[in-house]
Amino acid sequence: MADGKKKVESITSMEEDFAQWYTDVVVKADLTGYTSVKGFMVLKPAGYAIWENIQSELDKRFKATGVENVYLPMMIPESLLEKEKDHVEGFAPEVAWVTHGGLTPLQERMCVRPTSETLFCDFYKKDIESYRDLPKVYNQWCSVVRWEKETRPFLRSREFLWQEGHTAHATAEEAEERTIQMLNVYATFCEEVLAIPVVKGQKTEKEKFAGAVATYTIEALMHDGKALQSGTSHNFGDGFAKAFGVQYTDKDNQLKYVHQTSWGMTTRLIGAIIMVHGDDNGLKLPPLVAPTQVMIVPIQQKKEGVLEKAEELRNLLSDVARVKVDATDKSPGFKFAECEMRGIPLRIEVGPRDIENNQCVVVRRDTGEKLTVSMDELKDKVAELLVTIQKDMLEAARAHRDSHTYTAKDWDEFKNIIENKPGFVKAMWCGDRACEDKIKEETGATTRCMPFEQEHIADTCVYCGREAKKMVYFGRAY
Amino acid sequence: MADGKKKVESITSMEEDFAQWYTDVVVKADLTGYTSVKGFMVLKPAGYAIWENIQSELDKRFKATGVENVYLPMMIPESLLEKEKDHVEGFAPEVAWVTHGGLTPLQERMCVRPTSETLFCDFYKKDIESYRDLPKVYNQWCSVVRWEKETRPFLRSREFLWQEGHTAHATAEEAEERTIQMLNVYATFCEEVLAIPVVKGQKTEKEKFAGAVATYTIEALMHDGKALQSGTSHNFGDGFAKAFGVQYTDKDNQLKYVHQTSWGMTTRLIGAIIMVHGDDNGLKLPPLVAPTQVMIVPIQQKKEGVLEKAEELRNLLSDVARVKVDATDKSPGFKFAECEMRGIPLRIEVGPRDIENNQCVVVRRDTGEKLTVSMDELKDKVAELLVTIQKDMLEAARAHRDSHTYTAKDWDEFKNIIENKPGFVKAMWCGDRACEDKIKEETGATTRCMPFEQEHIADTCVYCGREAKKMVYFGRAY
Repeated sequence: MADGKKKVESITSMEEDFAQWYTDVVVKADLTGYTSVKGFMVLKPAGYAIWENIQSELDKRFKATGVENVYLPMMIPESLLEKEKDHVEGFAPEVAWVTHGGLTPLQERMCVRPTSETLFCDFYKKDIESYRDLPKVYNQWCSVVRWEKETRPFLRSREFLWQEGHTAHATAEEAEERTIQMLNVYATFCEEVLAIPVVKGQKTEKEKFAGAVATYTIEALMHDGKALQSGTSHNFGDGFAKAFGVQYTDKDNQLKYVHQTSWGMTTRLIGAIIMVHGDDNGLKLPPLVAPTQVMIVPIQQKKEGVLEKAEELRNLLSDVARVKVDATDKSPGFKFAECEMRGIPLRIEVGPRDIENNQCVVVRRDTGEKLTVSMDELKDKVAELLVTIQKDMLEAARAHRDSHTYTAKDWDEFKNIIENKPGFVKAMWCGDRACEDKIKEETGATTRCMPFEQEHIADTCVYCGREAKKMVYFGRAY
Repeated sequence: MADGKKKVESITSMEEDFAQWYTDVVVKADLTGYTSVKGFMVLKPAGYAIWENIQSELDKRFKATGVENVYLPMMIPESLLEKEKDHVEGFAPEVAWVTHGGLTPLQERMCVRPTSETLFCDFYKKDIESYRDLPKVYNQWCSVVRWEKETRPFLRSREFLWQEGHTAHATAEEAEERTIQMLNVYATFCEEVLAIPVVKGQKTEKEKFAGAVATYTIEALMHDGKALQSGTSHNFGDGFAKAFGVQYTDKDNQLKYVHQTSWGMTTRLIGAIIMVHGDDNGLKLPPLVAPTQVMIVPIQQKKEGVLEKAEELRNLLSDVARVKVDATDKSPGFKFAECEMRGIPLRIEVGPRDIENNQCVVVRRDTGEKLTVSMDELKDKVAELLVTIQKDMLEAARAHRDSHTYTAKDWDEFKNIIENKPGFVKAMWCGDRACEDKIKEETGATTRCMPFEQEHIADTCVYCGREAKKMVYFGRAY
């Protein structure tokens, strides 16, 4: 296992330096690549294939709720971006501006979309006439550009891939319902597919989306105790509709403004998968998003019948799993380490002695557990193990999250937890922006959300001691 | 059928004005929408769903040949675009330039990718070290921007969706093999999935891609007799590799340049589907790309049991087809016309009398044929009909193409055909750029390709009378 060991040793330990561990995993698991376009993400096959699985699972869930996919322009004329006041203030400082088309200066400059609320309004204004045209429940898969100064793979980059849903409804109630519905789709997706438990709640006024009436969020806890906002769903009320004049004729023949929502998830989720599940041997992929779920590693592969048996097993298992054989000339130890680094949920070792005994060795990536399995039972066992691993990874992540969620009744306790126990801190808040600002200033912790499941921790605000209005999840965040 | 008739009558007849007919179909079939971003395409659900089917079918075929998907940045620094001389000359006049990131002017301006050869070279330069890293067979699905002056939906727009494959190989032979392999994937895809027959061949020097050694193309014939380039595959030799310094260490320990290819297909294919298959009632979709393959239209739907039966049939058929029920309050005639306009391959009519007789009426969109089918046989019949329609649409398109492919031995004949018989003209060519230019100047016809299947039509060039080198497909083109 010399080669393999060498490879594993070259990752920084996560306890020693989590940020460096993260970068090491991203590179060694071959998820991203490099070009000279500074701050822009490159997804290599191993990284993009995870995104493809996320897309396909999420898209299926969207369509089951009636979502239809569309595609709108990647550029936004400046006058369009400026129509909604809060929105332009939020985004104008971080957009890329196009000033020339070919050799000709544009009459009006355009930005590359940082998000497409303004375009969907422009589109809906023309596309919606009567109540019969409602609701519109559209989504697009695309990339967006935001001119970030500091970038980190998957977490923050100048371009990222995402989906953005944009809907228009006849009533405020229906818009609110869709906003919550999509947040629930996101939460269930994270738990069922990514094996990441999330806290659902509402963002404070300070943290909400530029132009929204209400922003809802799902917050996940990374292995290092920092929070990651993993998906957001916004209710715009009729604010955008009024700014853009998106109206419909209702049954009563009156012209009314539509009520809108938007909701998005991004390639940032790949960062969440790495930071929730990974360990010092590398990535750990939940089976449902793993591009390769089972890697068969032949042992003494030059011996007669070994590669043939490996291939036979691949065929056998291809009904129940995404399975590959590693028949390269690397050593088995190196192959084992590579499987671990790339997070492949199951590894199967098969050599001459195994073949003789009609069995093989199956190794779980999540627990390291080794099982000797009869070839006759292998197919059922692999199918069963993939389900078990998916479930166990969620439980392990939930246990970590729960054991790193703390309660602070007063300011001393709060500061002590933030300094010494990385994780979520649940605490009471008066609802005042000033307290929120002070807490951030003094501890670096931000309000992650006001969870839907409220608890009564104390009567008074953890910072100012005045009457508390909400229980809030606080945390340092990515 | 009053409503329905009105709707149909509002399309221009294709014989009267093909261009207007095309625009009418695009709008009435609800494929595209409108925003104030001039020249940029908007895909509405009916249009985007066709693209999703194209993507999924094509992606499957790519992966079967070993293609892996990746994602590279959407922006290209100017210095990168300029590295390959022919390439920058070809593209610089039509790119969109980004000059500011947020409030700060960029040190170097960047263009939004018009195509990504330069980025892949930049990426491969860092990613490829030894012969062990080869071949790289990567593809990306994305959108690109080219600042067109005149735009038409699907055929030419400032932004379009596409896939671009970019590969790197150890040898020239392997690169050529991959170039042809992907052209064949494209051709088979067009025939099997889009029901569009194509001519495979090589582009002339004049028509080849900026920077390529050889460009291969598939050319389709539209209903109006104009040609449409439907997919291209380029062999770059080691030209880009030399410009960008993309080298690998070979088994003999020598540093060598890689050989590269690229190949792409775009949303333009949707334009091809419209113009090959459509008629005066609207769109005709081949079953394999039709988002809805079967529409069930209930007749006298307020009568007891009709909607229930329609729903029952939907359930029955959902195993063998993408099927919907139109239970809106529009008249049946209007629904029929709408099914036709949207190109849905099969319509099923079911009313009280049909239910009584345990049968329903099945109508083919391609031929208009009406069949009375027993409910007991409906599932098998629908499955069978979808296969038949797919096949018959290809045959109909092939018959049209073949009957509009002409042979010209001399210049008079050539001019006469071009003026009076829209279609492909097969003719001999001396290989001289001057003749190619003159032919275009005098007739508007361009060289579509030098087909792989050469024929001997005459000894001499159709224009200059000198010795002929190649048989060429000529035509006016989109």
